[in-house]
Amino acid sequence: MISIVILGTGNVAEHLFDVFSDHKEICVRQVWGRNRSHLSYFRDRAAISEDSSELLAADLYIIAVSDDAIPEVARTLIDKKGLVVHTSGSVPLNALVNNDKRGVFYPLQSFSKGREIDFKSVPICIEAENKEDLELLLQLARSISDDVREISSDQRKSLHLAAVFVNNFTNHLFQIANEICEEQRLPFGILLPLVRETVQKLDQLVPFDAQTGPAKRNDQETIGIHLHQLKNKNYKDIYALLSKSISEKYGQKL
Amino acid sequence: MISIVILGTGNVAEHLFDVFSDHKEICVRQVWGRNRSHLSYFRDRAAISEDSSELLAADLYIIAVSDDAIPEVARTLIDKKGLVVHTSGSVPLNALVNNDKRGVFYPLQSFSKGREIDFKSVPICIEAENKEDLELLLQLARSISDDVREISSDQRKSLHLAAVFVNNFTNHLFQIANEICEEQRLPFGILLPLVRETVQKLDQLVPFDAQTGPAKRNDQETIGIHLHQLKNKNYKDIYALLSKSISEKYGQKL
Repeated sequence: MISIVILGTGNVAEHLFDVFSDHKEICVRQVWGRNRSHLSYFRDRAAISEDSSELLAADLYIIAVSDDAIPEVARTLIDKKGLVVHTSGSVPLNALVNNDKRGVFYPLQSFSKGREIDFKSVPICIEAENKEDLELLLQLARSISDDVREISSDQRKSLHLAAVFVNNFTNHLFQIANEICEEQRLPFGILLPLVRETVQKLDQLVPFDAQTGPAKRNDQETIGIHLHQLKNKNYKDIYALLSKSISEKYGQKL
Repeated sequence: MISIVILGTGNVAEHLFDVFSDHKEICVRQVWGRNRSHLSYFRDRAAISEDSSELLAADLYIIAVSDDAIPEVARTLIDKKGLVVHTSGSVPLNALVNNDKRGVFYPLQSFSKGREIDFKSVPICIEAENKEDLELLLQLARSISDDVREISSDQRKSLHLAAVFVNNFTNHLFQIANEICEEQRLPFGILLPLVRETVQKLDQLVPFDAQTGPAKRNDQETIGIHLHQLKNKNYKDIYALLSKSISEKYGQKL
């Protein structure tokens, strides 16, 4: 049995709480948070508290708060005997000052309220300073995921950057495409089979080999027509810059 | 029975040929192309020809060649009685000069050599000038796809632009993420569950509501760290521009 206190009440806290609660060898003893209404989500299944002086003893304290609040929350755990970890992609291990038992438990996924996640396929990136703590994190991570990896702070920082490209920026491209469709009274759904194929191709091809389109062919005529179609200044700039980057990648100069 | 001659030997020609060949009410009589080695793909299942004076009679001529070659290929069909269509996203219907029976048969999908496509879910965008021709295209399209739509030349032009964003540009973001992973000796596959979730979210949310990340939050500290991590000038510019576009979309100025 691994006993856990979760600090934080956001999306990551909720999703971790739910998956841990389904597991008979994990006991979430308590959830701490500053926001009483958010705490109510956890109320029937664990102790809840807004007061950091009331924190219970546990094997593991999981800090799942916004990046800039991590150091402050970590300070409230200085006298605890358990291992203290955060769940952030971009915060280094050593941001957990004053804790000598410290680590990271970073699930590489985008969590949204109300969307269920199959944790079995979520890569869990763990890091710890000593072997015993690493073993505990390995055991916990493997109990919920089939993809557990030991990842250094530097590697994790790069993963977080890469995640911004494949998730945040990709979604913005979808948003632009959505607006282009709306202008012509076309439903965005008409693009979804293409979107799915763009991703499914990656099972077979690396992105370099999967690239197609006017920029790769350096098809200036089509690029010119497309730029002319775009009225929004940002979207026009994005089209031009991404086309330039693709063309140069394939040895051509726009 | 609908009789068809396909003009062209590229990816679209191959994929259409394969799906038509599986259908008992469609007969691909002939495939024409300039490239003898590409023609060999079709050899055992239809007549093949490199000579446009040898084209057979058919209900429908499908021009599946590169955009700039469409007018020239269309001219070789002036004396044919059948309907002449092209398969391009960006070429207007009236580019098929001198044909009074003309139309468009545009499958909105990215076709790669060797990758099988489930045509049932591929949106087929059709256009024709007269009702009888439209009926023929409807019948043909519905025999291979569950998603057939009448789309004007203007709408198709916008769809093609939107497709560049969700396919070509999205793939380039994957390529950048791949390079970031390689620098840290991490496999790109670690990002795939996140990539899949980015797309699966669209079944439930519009892109505007699915957006997350530092740019939406206007988290200048994280943005600054990420920009510092990127060494490639194009990738740095792409990060800055996409972040600016996202922040402005959510009412913030970077």
